[in-house]
Amino acid sequence: MKILTGKTAKLFLASILVAGLSTASFAKERVYKWTLATTWGPTLSPFIDTSHKMAKMVEEMSNGRLIIRIDASNKHKSAFGVLDMVKGGQYDMAHTASYYWRGKNIALLPLTTMPFGMTAPEQYAWFYEGGGMELMQKAYKPYKVLSYPGGNTGNQMGGWFRKEIKSLDDLKGLKMRIPGFAGEVMSKLGLAVTNVAPGELYTSLERGGLDALEWVGPGMDIKMGFHKIAPFYYTGWHEPSTELQYLVNQKKFKKLPKDLQVILETAMRVSAYDMYIQNYAMSADAWSEIATEYPNVKIKTFPKDVMAAMKKANKELVDEMSKENPQFKEIIDSQTAFQKKVREWTIMSDYRYLEDNLK
Amino acid sequence: MKILTGKTAKLFLASILVAGLSTASFAKERVYKWTLATTWGPTLSPFIDTSHKMAKMVEEMSNGRLIIRIDASNKHKSAFGVLDMVKGGQYDMAHTASYYWRGKNIALLPLTTMPFGMTAPEQYAWFYEGGGMELMQKAYKPYKVLSYPGGNTGNQMGGWFRKEIKSLDDLKGLKMRIPGFAGEVMSKLGLAVTNVAPGELYTSLERGGLDALEWVGPGMDIKMGFHKIAPFYYTGWHEPSTELQYLVNQKKFKKLPKDLQVILETAMRVSAYDMYIQNYAMSADAWSEIATEYPNVKIKTFPKDVMAAMKKANKELVDEMSKENPQFKEIIDSQTAFQKKVREWTIMSDYRYLEDNLK
Repeated sequence: MKILTGKTAKLFLASILVAGLSTASFAKERVYKWTLATTWGPTLSPFIDTSHKMAKMVEEMSNGRLIIRIDASNKHKSAFGVLDMVKGGQYDMAHTASYYWRGKNIALLPLTTMPFGMTAPEQYAWFYEGGGMELMQKAYKPYKVLSYPGGNTGNQMGGWFRKEIKSLDDLKGLKMRIPGFAGEVMSKLGLAVTNVAPGELYTSLERGGLDALEWVGPGMDIKMGFHKIAPFYYTGWHEPSTELQYLVNQKKFKKLPKDLQVILETAMRVSAYDMYIQNYAMSADAWSEIATEYPNVKIKTFPKDVMAAMKKANKELVDEMSKENPQFKEIIDSQTAFQKKVREWTIMSDYRYLEDNLK
Repeated sequence: MKILTGKTAKLFLASILVAGLSTASFAKERVYKWTLATTWGPTLSPFIDTSHKMAKMVEEMSNGRLIIRIDASNKHKSAFGVLDMVKGGQYDMAHTASYYWRGKNIALLPLTTMPFGMTAPEQYAWFYEGGGMELMQKAYKPYKVLSYPGGNTGNQMGGWFRKEIKSLDDLKGLKMRIPGFAGEVMSKLGLAVTNVAPGELYTSLERGGLDALEWVGPGMDIKMGFHKIAPFYYTGWHEPSTELQYLVNQKKFKKLPKDLQVILETAMRVSAYDMYIQNYAMSADAWSEIATEYPNVKIKTFPKDVMAAMKKANKELVDEMSKENPQFKEIIDSQTAFQKKVREWTIMSDYRYLEDNLK
């Protein structure tokens, strides 16, 4: 081929450009660089792993056309500011939990978990087959963000206490970190409930800023070292299935080509399920280690009258908030009806099976 | 732009070609057309929905570069021939269950479920966090297929019987469809165990080819109409978590570009989890309807001595097969050790929570 010069060369270059524009591939090859802010610190496994795994899948499936950079809370310094940052467009996405937004709208709390509420498979069934996703998107519409399940912790432990809880009186005045609707319940029972960024929990407990805290379950808790300061470890009642959340800026999402939208949604969905399974395995490992490796941990269940008081306070608060906030009522009514139906099947299937195998 | 003619036009066309070839997009734009054979008929929801949803995700995420056509069993006429067809390359993929391959290798049975075995979250934890995936790929290597979880039914019901089972004697001689290792157990207890393609179950039961059958759970069973012929509906022991399976021709998979490989694997993974959740919701719906809509269904639990005999027979058969087949032993040993550990956590978390909520 002879070397092209002058006018012919220009024509050649122009035609390359035309060829590029004339196929869909030109537009499709655009690389989107996104950022995601987490409420978690950079080492908080498996929470922090979840968005990293999601981003890796997205990058591989899109052949590098959608790259998501993860900023942990040590980077952006605003663990509980991530919803505002996604709303404002400083970040394209966040990985967090809906029940941190007590100050914005109490209707966002039951989208994470409710005391005495659904278990993990029940809750996923509510989200995906029982109308939950639609209610969640509706609740986040005012913030102009889309919202997706972001990973389940499974059944959580009731928390770490410095002293044994023998009566309701022992709870009164305790400074406790316990988020979500369970925090409302504990407030009603006389505790001083506070929220503390995950990275500061140990220090707060150590220095007396907290007397007690609940975090997640054995898989995550043991690594935090809480047992060294507060050895009474209570079984759960308050977070039977805690679903974390992805938040996505609506406008940015709409600007993605359709294939990248599906890639992103699919990667978020599978990473959420995967975290449930990862944490289940981590909890099983840690639970089996507690007896041998951490003999100072004292496993306890709250006394019956304390549990009854929690249940009563929860019911009263749900009724109260339902009167105040129609959106809270709509979500709670949907969850309650679904739980009533699905629980019958849970009892008939997994529960009876486990019961029989225990004998 | 003036109209190009003669030599200039040829140059223009050549340069389009050069432009196309000079980017990676040309190779990437190749469309792969695959076929998938299911063991299920075209209307067997949610089994059949699972591969369709997977194929839809793949098509959307790949922007049409990987298209998977689903052939249900009415098309290929070989419900239990799908492993051979994928091995032989007549199909690129299958959607089926590993425990149908009793005639090939008994080590493939526990990859679906085991009597008195793990629940669904426990089993997913074994697959993804406990070494299960590696053992499964190893077991399928001789067939030159890759194997992936393909959807979980959750805890299955023990089946439909024409007559009530009051003793071990009532079981003897019964012609029953019950696949997997539970079929081995029932054979040992004197039943005539047979496998029947899903599409022929109702007719077999109606015409006396079968006296009893187990299928899945209320969500799927009620639609099959079994209750009209065999109204005694027993609770489960034999399939606490049944994972269906995708099989993929290894050679064909290797020929896919990396991004399409990840797209396919991600879509299979999420469709499997989704089926678990879909079937959980379907079972809850059907269970709540049984009492009102199907009053002739009689819910029963096998008598204690029958259950004890099943447990004993299962244990003996597992020991026997473990001696005969080292691969079976390797898989069973891995599952047993994992189940022992993870069950402690299941009991401590979900089971105790449900127990407390029942009160």
